[in-house]
Amino acid sequence: MSGWKRYGDWLVREQETGLWLDVSRMGLDEAFLERMEEQVKRAFADMRQLEAGEIANPDEERMVGHYWLRAPELAPNEALARVIREDREACLDFAGRVACGDICGEGGQFREVLLIGIGGSALGPQLAADALRRGTSAMETHYFDNTDPDGFDRVLDGLRDRLGETLTVVISKSGGTEETRNGMLEAAAAYRAAGLDFARHAAAVTGEGSALDREAEGNGWLARFRMHDWVGGRTSVTSVVGLLPMALQGIDTGAFLEGAASMDRHTRSEDPRANAAMLMALAWHQAGEGRGAKDMVILPYKDRLLLLSRYLQQLVMESLGKDRDRDGGETAQGITVYGNKGSTDQHAFVQQLCDGVNNFFVTFVEARRARQGNSLEVKPGATSGDYLQGFLRGTRRALTERGRQSVTLSIPEVEERSLGALIALFERAVGFYASLVNINAYHQPGVQAGKTAASSFLTLLGRARAELTGSGQEGILAAELARGLGEDPEDVFHALHHLAANGSARCRLGLHPAEDRFVGLP
Amino acid sequence: MSGWKRYGDWLVREQETGLWLDVSRMGLDEAFLERMEEQVKRAFADMRQLEAGEIANPDEERMVGHYWLRAPELAPNEALARVIREDREACLDFAGRVACGDICGEGGQFREVLLIGIGGSALGPQLAADALRRGTSAMETHYFDNTDPDGFDRVLDGLRDRLGETLTVVISKSGGTEETRNGMLEAAAAYRAAGLDFARHAAAVTGEGSALDREAEGNGWLARFRMHDWVGGRTSVTSVVGLLPMALQGIDTGAFLEGAASMDRHTRSEDPRANAAMLMALAWHQAGEGRGAKDMVILPYKDRLLLLSRYLQQLVMESLGKDRDRDGGETAQGITVYGNKGSTDQHAFVQQLCDGVNNFFVTFVEARRARQGNSLEVKPGATSGDYLQGFLRGTRRALTERGRQSVTLSIPEVEERSLGALIALFERAVGFYASLVNINAYHQPGVQAGKTAASSFLTLLGRARAELTGSGQEGILAAELARGLGEDPEDVFHALHHLAANGSARCRLGLHPAEDRFVGLP
Repeated sequence: MSGWKRYGDWLVREQETGLWLDVSRMGLDEAFLERMEEQVKRAFADMRQLEAGEIANPDEERMVGHYWLRAPELAPNEALARVIREDREACLDFAGRVACGDICGEGGQFREVLLIGIGGSALGPQLAADALRRGTSAMETHYFDNTDPDGFDRVLDGLRDRLGETLTVVISKSGGTEETRNGMLEAAAAYRAAGLDFARHAAAVTGEGSALDREAEGNGWLARFRMHDWVGGRTSVTSVVGLLPMALQGIDTGAFLEGAASMDRHTRSEDPRANAAMLMALAWHQAGEGRGAKDMVILPYKDRLLLLSRYLQQLVMESLGKDRDRDGGETAQGITVYGNKGSTDQHAFVQQLCDGVNNFFVTFVEARRARQGNSLEVKPGATSGDYLQGFLRGTRRALTERGRQSVTLSIPEVEERSLGALIALFERAVGFYASLVNINAYHQPGVQAGKTAASSFLTLLGRARAELTGSGQEGILAAELARGLGEDPEDVFHALHHLAANGSARCRLGLHPAEDRFVGLP
Repeated sequence: MSGWKRYGDWLVREQETGLWLDVSRMGLDEAFLERMEEQVKRAFADMRQLEAGEIANPDEERMVGHYWLRAPELAPNEALARVIREDREACLDFAGRVACGDICGEGGQFREVLLIGIGGSALGPQLAADALRRGTSAMETHYFDNTDPDGFDRVLDGLRDRLGETLTVVISKSGGTEETRNGMLEAAAAYRAAGLDFARHAAAVTGEGSALDREAEGNGWLARFRMHDWVGGRTSVTSVVGLLPMALQGIDTGAFLEGAASMDRHTRSEDPRANAAMLMALAWHQAGEGRGAKDMVILPYKDRLLLLSRYLQQLVMESLGKDRDRDGGETAQGITVYGNKGSTDQHAFVQQLCDGVNNFFVTFVEARRARQGNSLEVKPGATSGDYLQGFLRGTRRALTERGRQSVTLSIPEVEERSLGALIALFERAVGFYASLVNINAYHQPGVQAGKTAASSFLTLLGRARAELTGSGQEGILAAELARGLGEDPEDVFHALHHLAANGSARCRLGLHPAEDRFVGLP
């Protein structure tokens, strides 16, 4: 009976949404909770202050307000509360007018959505669409979520002849994200090439006064929606960023927000044993020794939740992967997240989970209801859904028997309320965990170096292209060109090969990269 | 200049496919290669024996023959070589007859494919389709790759009214994979419900004489294709498993096989410095200390390669995640694989890679050609593809500066030959790495425990359902029912909630799981 008792002791059931958290297989105990008592208290205090509107992201001097999005009455002032309500209404109003054809494209009623955004401006909408879309009548959403030219072409090929019925939504808080800007320009060119006016098919979701906002205003786009500096990209799915695409697809944004709000209420409890988010954060801490020593494997046993792991990769890793604690001290934090879905992954990497390096804990996600409507018996007395449940329980047991830890989340079914609750649970758990290990979960300073280096590379590319034009027919070596430019030969080598592969140069390969010769093409 | 020299020293360029491997940022040195000399020799010898037809998978007493699929002339005997050629021809012949309408469905020419398979029977076809499909005219492929009833319904909803033009391909080597069998039965029921004869729309890819083979033969399916016990699921993409779906979609299977064959020839070199697969395996070993201490993050900067990480998760983790070495000694091997695509992931988890826990190395994948056709200038002198290349180079540099290791693979573009080469490179590297750490890469014993536990759970589910029928209106507790059945109360609790969520029982939730009461429904 001890497993059963332990199960009951370490299960939390949130009543309004029916979301259950089982951490009985995570090796938590009372002694650990006692040791963590001070940190837990601090985490609750931090969260209280955050929700009250303190500058919870001091590095960027910003409030962190995603919880207000689900409960405007909790916003720190009436002006903010009003803004939240107005934003929501603006979304629903616009989506309603699109749905009834009151707002339409030059080819007639909008039947497709092209969402242009990256990171926090795409992952939430992608997860919500894949998890919640039902029926075939709703508008389908396509994505530009990169700066891959071939990727743009592929999406545009799929929309060929239908751009006049395609609503493009460009999402970028700063308005300066280069992937998004490139996507917008390529989309605009495609509309133009089809003889269509891009502005009459475009809506912007961006910070007030951003470059994108000015562009949309100046060119008379169909609509502009506000993003606020107190909503971070990875927690923006309950803002206009998530709500507008959902509303356009006929997803019930009210139920989604209510699910999140229910979970928010539940996770405000300051009893860690009764608070699913704190309990989950503590389980992460115990498993990974507070230093991310174990990867988090996300295994939802439901096709509709395939993108959950990708969504959580951003939420967890971008929030927790930090090299400074809140006092400025050096650290190396983070929790790695990966996974796809069960039982599919049982036929892929679960072999390693069972037998291989024990560097992870699993987070199972169960949807209790198998399907809408009746089920075929695939064997006497058994349905496909019985098998799915059997595989989840079987794998959970096999992992436990081999000393592998697991969390199990259970939701009634994959619908708006559950997904809202699930996301809110992880948002809060990430916030708590960050406090437990004393880091700022709400900034992302680490990606700047890569962007700066990318910008240098682009400058170099232009210089190399110009320099090549004057090269003779015998061709020039990367090291020679680098000397002339005062640049690193390897960087120049990569620039030259990029030019050669894309029509601006010709390359004669040597046996060794130092022997490759490049000739500029006009 | 030292970075440039190091780059040249640790770059391998395969000439026929144009695939380049750069391990200059992995911290390899001559001293490490010397230390590994004996293991490297053994790995080459193991590979020679495997290719010669020895029982390279002794636990299952099987030969391991995926390399012969690309070079039938290397098969250990003429009978095998003939079988390989016949299988290929059968695929192309069938696909050709489908394409010209010689073989068609009850609704006319086949325009859609429903592929039913899981793990190795789906991941390769999914990767190939997503990477290589061009144009909108080819048949689109849909997948049942799980036993999620709602997932089945979603795919079938998308095919509504078109089942008569949908060719279903069922892929299962043993013919007994339960997810696949369930999918087949649900698909057959859908065809029946639409007034169609399933057999006239179905083809089987399976082992000769398997349950699936007998079913297909007995019911007169359109076609049956052979799978062989010397091809493992995770290395089956160059067998009929991959070739048939590719051929149906108009993908050039000949070029795909040639790309793989080219890489196979290259990776037979027994000079580790000139062998991309061995060099990559050595880099993995050095980074992870031969015990999987570092996760492998797969970052292809190309939308078409989004599924590469999922494919490699299976290939790498199922092959390497083992608890026994080849001498029967205990071990805990494996290399964790995850990732999606760049630059998208730069806006998700790259924050953690740059600043957080240093528990990984990145594998960048570059496609040198940005797109087919001309590019818009998104800034004076710069295209979207220039940005993509800039982000790759920028992030690679930023990671190096922070002491994070990376491999960079470069292919000319994403097409049949490159993808074949890329897959063959990883197959060989995985084989080499397994020899370096002395494990069997070709079996997967660890998943059996979960399957057995799943089967027990299904039995319990049936017993609980039967037992519940006799329960009174006041309801029964999980522990009471468990006592009656002589089963574990927690298992019974999960079974009862599954029944309650799916129409076979009613549940009154208590405050504690021990207090939940269940009543059977007729």
